[in-house]
Order: sequence, then structure tokens, then C-alpha cells
Amino acid sequence: MSVPFELHPQLAKDSIWLADWPLCQVRLCNDSNYPWFILIPRRADIRDVIDLPEHEQDLLWQESRRLSHYLKQDYAPDKLNLAALGNMVPQLHVHHIGRFISDAAWPAPVWGKVTACPYSAVQLAEIALRWQHRQE
Amino acid sequence: MSVPFELHPQLAKDSIWLADWPLCQVRLCNDSNYPWFILIPRRADIRDVIDLPEHEQDLLWQESRRLSHYLKQDYAPDKLNLAALGNMVPQLHVHHIGRFISDAAWPAPVWGKVTACPYSAVQLAEIALRWQHRQE
Repeated sequence: MSVPFELHPQLAKDSIWLADWPLCQVRLCNDSNYPWFILIPRRADIRDVIDLPEHEQDLLWQESRRLSHYLKQDYAPDKLNLAALGNMVPQLHVHHIGRFISDAAWPAPVWGKVTACPYSAVQLAEIALRWQHRQE
Repeated sequence: MSVPFELHPQLAKDSIWLADWPLCQVRLCNDSNYPWFILIPRRADIRDVIDLPEHEQDLLWQESRRLSHYLKQDYAPDKLNLAALGNMVPQLHVHHIGRFISDAAWPAPVWGKVTACPYSAVQLAEIALRWQHRQE
């Protein structure tokens, strides 16, 4: 029997559920300094991209493409940052971050640079609503 | 007429040519703190992954998979870090970094953490030789 997917508690704490796609859970990082979304393949015990079967690696990158397009449409960032690091949280998760020349960490990578600035309830509701429409 | 690919001077300065694959140039970052390889699609004026035509995005991730397997075989790192950032060097390039719990920056991302430690000529020759055999 296969082990069920369970979201790592650190990801659960730092981010908010937006959608379940065929492979990944899509979550919003609760840091309004940047439009920052995370794809987490809903598979147990996966640390690196190449730990997934090849057809699921392909699906991951298709979902990454879809998320990147949404991010560009919604926020028109100057640059996209994609990253699968996982040194702290070993569960495979792929960051998709819209970066602006005017943002708090530019041009450095975002990690460890600026204290996270949580969204307000109203901001979260707006984003969740946009994503709800996207599902329909 | 299409614009020819030219490697960004900063990438040329910081890294060493290893191979030309169907889409990407494979380069070694000249920092012996980590086994750190870079894929650069040989296309002009591309900044984000989604700026490539879809079939070349697929090819990029196939080449990323191939490079990730080589990296794991050759170095057996504790974790792979993949990242396409490009805030400083806008030409699309995808970092593939083998990370060790014992390395100089662990568990932080590598950027801006520790001064680069260039390889010796002997070390570079060994790596280039391994890659030369790989091409044959």
C-alpha cells in the first residue's frame, strides 16, 4: 500500500492552500513582499525532482509553466525566480516568485533577506477568490 | 534572420565550458565549495523559462534531468538545489547545485554566502576529462 501524501508542517504554517492540480498542491507563501507561489507534488517521500517518475516530472514542469503564466498575467513582474532548494524543508516544493526591481530583496534571492510580511485577511480573500474563479 | 546566441560575459567569467547539448550549454561554476553546474539554453534574448517555445521548455527539463543524474552519480550530494533566478544576469540559466550537510553555506542557499573558491588546474582537468568521456 502506498504511503499517503502529507504536507510538511513548515509548509502548512508558512503558506495558504489555493488549489489542487493533477500533480501538485498550489499554495501562496504568506509573505506579501513578493507574489510567491509554491508547487508541492502530492506524493509521499519525494525530495528531489528526479525522485519522481519521469512522467510526473513532465507533469510538474507543465504545472510550473501554467503557474508561471498566471503569475506573469496577474502581477507583471520584472523577473520570475524558480527554485527547488529544500535544504530546510526536505519535502519537494518548487518556488515561483515574481520579482520586481523595486522589491525588498532585489537583486538578491529572497531567502533570509527580509522578514516575511503576512497578508491581511482582505488581501488573502481577494487572492483566494481569483483562484476560485480560475478553477471553474 | 534570427539573432545568434551569445553567452553573457558574467557567466563566461564565472564558469567553464563542459559540453554543448541539443539545447543547452553545460558549464561548471568555478567555485569548488560545491559541485555546481549551469545549463544555459543556446538561444538569444531569453530571460524566463516560459520565454522559450514549449518544446524547448520540455527539452530544457530533459537536459536538467540528465544533468541532475550525472551530479548525483558523481558526487552523491545530500540534496540537489535547482534554480533559475537571473536577477543579476538576465540571460536564462539554470543552476544545478549538489549540497552537503557539511558544505560552507548549508542549509542556506549558496548565493552571497561564501566567497567562491576557484578550482585548481588539476581539478579542472579531472572534471573536463570526465565530461569528455561522457560525450563519447
